Amino acid sequence: MRVGSTETAEPVVSVRKPYKLVSRDFHPDDSVIQVGNVAFGGNKVIVMSGPCAVESREQVMQSAEFMQRIGVPVLRGGAYKPRTSPYSFQGMRVEGLKILAEARERYGVLIVTEAVDHESLANVAEWADIVQIGARNMQNFELLKAAGQTGKPVLLKRGLAATIDEWLMAAEYIAANGNMNIILCERGIRTYETKTRNTLDISAVPVVKQLSHLPVVIDPSHAAGQWQWVAPLARAGVAAGVDGLIIEAHPNPAEALSDGPQSLNFRHLEELMGEVGLIAQALGRDL
Amino acid sequence: MRVGSTETAEPVVSVRKPYKLVSRDFHPDDSVIQVGNVAFGGNKVIVMSGPCAVESREQVMQSAEFMQRIGVPVLRGGAYKPRTSPYSFQGMRVEGLKILAEARERYGVLIVTEAVDHESLANVAEWADIVQIGARNMQNFELLKAAGQTGKPVLLKRGLAATIDEWLMAAEYIAANGNMNIILCERGIRTYETKTRNTLDISAVPVVKQLSHLPVVIDPSHAAGQWQWVAPLARAGVAAGVDGLIIEAHPNPAEALSDGPQSLNFRHLEELMGEVGLIAQALGRDL
Amino acid sequence: MRVGSTETAEPVVSVRKPYKLVSRDFHPDDSVIQVGNVAFGGNKVIVMSGPCAVESREQVMQSAEFMQRIGVPVLRGGAYKPRTSPYSFQGMRVEGLKILAEARERYGVLIVTEAVDHESLANVAEWADIVQIGARNMQNFELLKAAGQTGKPVLLKRGLAATIDEWLMAAEYIAANGNMNIILCERGIRTYETKTRNTLDISAVPVVKQLSHLPVVIDPSHAAGQWQWVAPLARAGVAAGVDGLIIEAHPNPAEALSDGPQSLNFRHLEELMGEVGLIAQALGRDL
Amino acid sequence: MRVGSTETAEPVVSVRKPYKLVSRDFHPDDSVIQVGNVAFGGNKVIVMSGPCAVESREQVMQSAEFMQRIGVPVLRGGAYKPRTSPYSFQGMRVEGLKILAEARERYGVLIVTEAVDHESLANVAEWADIVQIGARNMQNFELLKAAGQTGKPVLLKRGLAATIDEWLMAAEYIAANGNMNIILCERGIRTYETKTRNTLDISAVPVVKQLSHLPVVIDPSHAAGQWQWVAPLARAGVAAGVDGLIIEAHPNPAEALSDGPQSLNFRHLEELMGEVGLIAQALGRDL
Repeated sequence: MRVGSTETAEPVVSVRKPYKLVSRDFHPDDSVIQVGNVAFGGNKVIVMSGPCAVESREQVMQSAEFMQRIGVPVLRGGAYKPRTSPYSFQGMRVEGLKILAEARERYGVLIVTEAVDHESLANVAEWADIVQIGARNMQNFELLKAAGQTGKPVLLKRGLAATIDEWLMAAEYIAANGNMNIILCERGIRTYETKTRNTLDISAVPVVKQLSHLPVVIDPSHAAGQWQWVAPLARAGVAAGVDGLIIEAHPNPAEALSDGPQSLNFRHLEELMGEVGLIAQALGRDL
Repeated sequence: MRVGSTETAEPVVSVRKPYKLVSRDFHPDDSVIQVGNVAFGGNKVIVMSGPCAVESREQVMQSAEFMQRIGVPVLRGGAYKPRTSPYSFQGMRVEGLKILAEARERYGVLIVTEAVDHESLANVAEWADIVQIGARNMQNFELLKAAGQTGKPVLLKRGLAATIDEWLMAAEYIAANGNMNIILCERGIRTYETKTRNTLDISAVPVVKQLSHLPVVIDPSHAAGQWQWVAPLARAGVAAGVDGLIIEAHPNPAEALSDGPQSLNFRHLEELMGEVGLIAQALGRDL
Repeated sequence: MRVGSTETAEPVVSVRKPYKLVSRDFHPDDSVIQVGNVAFGGNKVIVMSGPCAVESREQVMQSAEFMQRIGVPVLRGGAYKPRTSPYSFQGMRVEGLKILAEARERYGVLIVTEAVDHESLANVAEWADIVQIGARNMQNFELLKAAGQTGKPVLLKRGLAATIDEWLMAAEYIAANGNMNIILCERGIRTYETKTRNTLDISAVPVVKQLSHLPVVIDPSHAAGQWQWVAPLARAGVAAGVDGLIIEAHPNPAEALSDGPQSLNFRHLEELMGEVGLIAQALGRDL
Repeated sequence: MRVGSTETAEPVVSVRKPYKLVSRDFHPDDSVIQVGNVAFGGNKVIVMSGPCAVESREQVMQSAEFMQRIGVPVLRGGAYKPRTSPYSFQGMRVEGLKILAEARERYGVLIVTEAVDHESLANVAEWADIVQIGARNMQNFELLKAAGQTGKPVLLKRGLAATIDEWLMAAEYIAANGNMNIILCERGIRTYETKTRNTLDISAVPVVKQLSHLPVVIDPSHAAGQWQWVAPLARAGVAAGVDGLIIEAHPNPAEALSDGPQSLNFRHLEELMGEVGLIAQALGRDL
């Protein structure tokens, strides 16, 4: 048994478990979600990285080239952007998806990107490898049903104030619609503390691993809200047993159209890869 | 000036105000949203009531008949139900909308009901008087844009963990898409306290009235989660200056398909109407 | 039965009730706490007002004179101040208590003031009528035990993040040490919302009235953090069924040594008294 | 530079910093707090462990013997217990302190134990090595002042709903009273999530390390509330850069007088030591 795994031999908490298909009772072993040549939920910790938003062809190619070079197998980048303000940049949409697909062809990285409604979901399912459902849509049940029906791997972010049970029920919506290829992503919850953008609920990692067979990743960038704190949180996640990390990185954070303050530059991303690699190895895993 | 109004003569808090159209700076007077013969934001406190979900033609007619009799001008009832579990009753959908429309014809009540995606929005806009955007969809920005484009009056519920600024930004999405007929609804926020289903943020009433010109109503039923506490919260809301109340009531709460514990029976609803009427009168308003 | 009371005939929530003496099971009728000529928990809504801190003899006399004139029976004012910063004004201590006692003699108002440890408790019990235990000390169990042993009426504020059960258990500490003269005070809880200083948990009023026989008051000043929102919250509290209000008012808020922004000036306090009086009357109570 | 340290070269957040002595501006290097032969804030990660409460001489000796054997240098154990209920076991008090002191003599472990008021503080300062101030007393300012005056090393737990600024201000109270020997302890904050007892705010580790020069430890036991999740959280803490861990362990958790469910048995504690040792080594530190 690798050190980083969570013992689940002795159940203690008697929990109401409204979910079925995503429960460990239904599938006692860890699920392994295969996406291209990448396996979520196995021995490797999968790093996904890239800019918050697709801003230009050049920015994406530069990012994809760097990810390939340092061994990040999945490129992230938003083509559809759910922004708090209607006056903010809303994303390059289909044009952005095509740029991401081109980057995949050229650099051999997989693509994860967000869908925000039925129309964008159809496009994302066509052009990308993993469909992201964002925190704000975690209980957009119609979108969850449709994501289930596509059959594509889904990265399901936890809602800003979703309980672990609600999060697993959202996954159950996808599963009940025929799709078990679900990767759960903890990205910080809303609390009274304002120093960080959100509060990374690191405990959710072992709790969800006990309750569900699905792979769990964390997004330390949205949790921290400041790039300096991303590396310590990424290290903590790997130490707690995550199956992957999704991290915002930008060729030039100071000029990012969104989330600049929480984006790593490429040098810091490379340092982070080294640090989390050491932790993974200490626990018998690798990147 | 009526007693219940909020003085806004002396602004104190220097707030970042990313919203424009919904801000009091843009429209200093209270907006009055006229829906049929009902005006939200005027001197009357508008009561909306009915069952959580449309369950049958009989249940709706019985409810509408009672609402008409005790002077409740708007009937609520969900035809599309966003449920936490995919295995729960998901609503009667278009069939439910037709029943609501029939009730309007027979009893002269207006209809408010929820839309959950583009398709249901089109149907709700066709059959109902007020489109409800639920708490879980408050930051479903594509739905907000579409709701803006219908031009129909929108009841916009505050998200479970939305800040007041995010809530007003969600309203701004509707407004920026051409629709100023927005009624804001506080329905309880998520906190650490578990005795109640949510924590009614009563302070949001005067705060939002200061920041925005839009009418504000509260939903004490979802906040309380227990029918016994609905009347005190409804009274508190009227005392704090709300423009309306939306309250779950069911002909037989014990048999409700959803939210039974927080639904008033009709006798208790009638008592509540008496109590809030006295408070409204004390403040120079009426029901 | 007066309208504002809470029906408790049909218990619904099956709650773990670790408290005994403060439970309604132990004492089904409302407790009435008599302090001098003032009764908390009876038909009158008791208003307590005055400055956050005792700053000078003149300030206290001016306040007491005004309270007497407009019919506020209890003067509040801190002689011992638990301040977040060690560099902030820490209170006039015994000298402040003597000034408050002099104000009682001259103007016939009762005095409520805070104790922060064993020594200040002994002094407050000697000079004042009601001992306040502040939110930050709600689980300072040694102080609670000592407050129980004095036998003096205690105003017990809810902790910033205390559950209702923990608050009632804190009251149980006082009761178990021989003192049933306890007045519970909801003063806002800590949530993610930052527009207000805290979030007034108005639902706590009917919930606690159902669970306990003790009188319940609210402190809308600390909840709001801005004087403009104090009156709507005070009205809401009376409408929800509180037995009293504790409100910060200062002869000159702009010069207050602490909590100036949330302090009413005397003209606004007088207006508030008129407004809450109308609500109380509508519900069959008076001030 | 060791990998686990936090870069603070480029300050990003412009924070209001009301604290002075505990700020990194005042003392740019990490403070090292020497207690006997143990140094908090240096290269070693210091583990403190033992039972929640001192229950008997035998239980303490058994614990101390085990801690010595597996290399845990500090024994924890409560002689004064701040319990939510007045009817729960309140601790062995001075008798408990004497047992702890005897364990120190026999097994060479240092003692950390909680003080709850002036009297217990005097006793703890006499018999123990580190004075713990508990979460519920974090803003018991009179106790903080007195703890400052003793000069003894203080383990200051973060309050259940304290912001990072409030926590550092509580430390400032101790420092301003002449005592810079302060170890900060994150122990989980109160959020809406109920699966865990509290939510470990792992982000607080890098944030506080950036703002302050004081050593930071975590208490994964109180955060988790269930022993199974303690090891993953301890690993996460070390990966995030903590200077120590405080962990509840009991010779027989099933019979513990308090906090049994979150206490490790000795075998699990030994396993945890192995795991966190591997992480520490990966980051260039050791236990």
